Amino acid sequence: MTAPVDAARTSSGAGAHRIAVLGAGSWGSTFAKVLADAAAGRGEEPEIVLWARRPEVAAEIAEHHTNTTYLGEIGLPEMITATADVGEAVAGADVVVLALPAQSLRTQLDEVRGRLGAETVVVSLIKGLERGTDLRMSEVIAEQLALPAERIAVISGPNLAMEIAREEPTASVVACADHAVAERIAGLSNTGYFRPYTNSDVVGVELAGIVKNVIALAVGICDGQGLGDNSKASVITRGLAETTRLAHALGGTLETFSGLAGLGDLVATCASPLSRNRTAGRLLGDGLTADEVVAELTQTAEGMKSGSAVVDLARRHGVEMPISEAVVAVLDGTLSVDRIAPLLLARDLKAEGK
Amino acid sequence: MTAPVDAARTSSGAGAHRIAVLGAGSWGSTFAKVLADAAAGRGEEPEIVLWARRPEVAAEIAEHHTNTTYLGEIGLPEMITATADVGEAVAGADVVVLALPAQSLRTQLDEVRGRLGAETVVVSLIKGLERGTDLRMSEVIAEQLALPAERIAVISGPNLAMEIAREEPTASVVACADHAVAERIAGLSNTGYFRPYTNSDVVGVELAGIVKNVIALAVGICDGQGLGDNSKASVITRGLAETTRLAHALGGTLETFSGLAGLGDLVATCASPLSRNRTAGRLLGDGLTADEVVAELTQTAEGMKSGSAVVDLARRHGVEMPISEAVVAVLDGTLSVDRIAPLLLARDLKAEGK
Repeated sequence: MTAPVDAARTSSGAGAHRIAVLGAGSWGSTFAKVLADAAAGRGEEPEIVLWARRPEVAAEIAEHHTNTTYLGEIGLPEMITATADVGEAVAGADVVVLALPAQSLRTQLDEVRGRLGAETVVVSLIKGLERGTDLRMSEVIAEQLALPAERIAVISGPNLAMEIAREEPTASVVACADHAVAERIAGLSNTGYFRPYTNSDVVGVELAGIVKNVIALAVGICDGQGLGDNSKASVITRGLAETTRLAHALGGTLETFSGLAGLGDLVATCASPLSRNRTAGRLLGDGLTADEVVAELTQTAEGMKSGSAVVDLARRHGVEMPISEAVVAVLDGTLSVDRIAPLLLARDLKAEGK
Repeated sequence: MTAPVDAARTSSGAGAHRIAVLGAGSWGSTFAKVLADAAAGRGEEPEIVLWARRPEVAAEIAEHHTNTTYLGEIGLPEMITATADVGEAVAGADVVVLALPAQSLRTQLDEVRGRLGAETVVVSLIKGLERGTDLRMSEVIAEQLALPAERIAVISGPNLAMEIAREEPTASVVACADHAVAERIAGLSNTGYFRPYTNSDVVGVELAGIVKNVIALAVGICDGQGLGDNSKASVITRGLAETTRLAHALGGTLETFSGLAGLGDLVATCASPLSRNRTAGRLLGDGLTADEVVAELTQTAEGMKSGSAVVDLARRHGVEMPISEAVVAVLDGTLSVDRIAPLLLARDLKAEGK
């Protein structure tokens, strides 16, 4: 890469000297690969450093260019280095990408604060609401790192990580209040198999990614209860409608929900046998309690954690979300899963959308 | 049933003396069962007569209350009678439901014309555009039967017939320019397992049901080409967007496409292993020609017939429909299926929806 740093930072679509990706789970590792492949496609060689919490994972990535725990035998580009030291990872980075668990983001950011450059852009790949505060991830980032909106971007879409890691064609959405920043991040992640679109609706893109996990739980519950594709399609349709109502109340735009981050992500999640949330829902639908489901699954089903925060947020804004409420009631143990079907489906004859 | 005919005709949700369902395939037979179960739920006993083209099918329905060719062992309510005589079926009917093949509707209606009562309402369950004229089914009905818009309703939604026949919970949309008529038809078909919503956007509801078969072909092609859930979700999202653009140009409303007849039906069709169009697409994706696919399938994949009419309609109205165009090019043999993936997915970095 030959362009000077400042030009790279300010010109749309231009590169970066150093990008840190915090979190070496399946999505963080895959996104590091996307960034490396995109840079190679542009003929650039930025430093791409992946932070892993566990030193042995960092060592495997650095030495063997694999992350077998999350990506099996898939090879990571040699451009990617790895460390278990957050401070080392973020030092001098133009862009810091966050792929951390939603509920531990705030404490993890304690180690990032004070180490960012004056123009560093932070990109969130995280889907979830913080329990207790009901804040979106971009809000937690803004609060913890004291960053303005134009230095925070979010990425969301129909993005099952394993498919992207296998280089299957995927589209996604990069959202930032500052369109030039969204375009820059899109340029940094644009490869033959990963196609980012830009959007300025950060609220809508984040909420779409959060609530879809709750709706995926509902679709999984339908599976567990033996309901068919008609029922599941109705739950997806009404689920997207209630998500849109919530986002509209919070200032999101309707178009986001008919796009890749809304409809696209919801459909991919609900269709995929790889979805943890749908799997968790199926186990709930089979009659397991929430605690039994958590014990059964090795990875987090984010919708089980964010569900109650979604319902809290909706109530505070006077938005009806019958599907999310029914799912949360099953998770809380206040509703028997055998009684959920009529709550998930339409009850009254009325004009659609009213 | 005790209400006088005129009251039944004019009051919202009230019954009918006699309903004819023309077409004893899986959807026509299932909808006759829905009407019969709905009437029983209201404590009414209208005549429900199902017309089958083949006398042996009519005889099986009348004598054994089954239609094993299309519905296996599922029992039809005894309220349903059957005939192979169209004139006999429609004589005196308050409501005539059409569940006929799209491409033979016009000629079939020759036998219906002149036999309808002065207030008979015609309900279309048919999804397709007429080849040659590019007319929607409600337009063919209006033309052939000289009916005003307020006597024609259409029903569409996430309605896989076999699931409804098995009484799995399903929602649907009844559309008519006259809201009271839509409400009446919704009332006639409202049962515990079939929940109709009303809508006045006949154009949108019909187009949604037509184009989704073409998009389902595209999703099936993705299967045949080995593409994953990310790719398929993008095709569904962009496919719904291009359908919405076409409907908007023809006067449909955007809300229809985020609802059950739009998103709901598309998701159900694309998710279901029962979908003929998705199956046909998979075979195309495997490399079979359109003729080979037709030879392989026993039932019609409507999208293969309507696809070129959809593309014609879009061109006449200056609407871009890249997914439908790619599918039609594969059907025509002018595009190799191995080259379709980049045409189905996003090519340029740009703001979503632009």
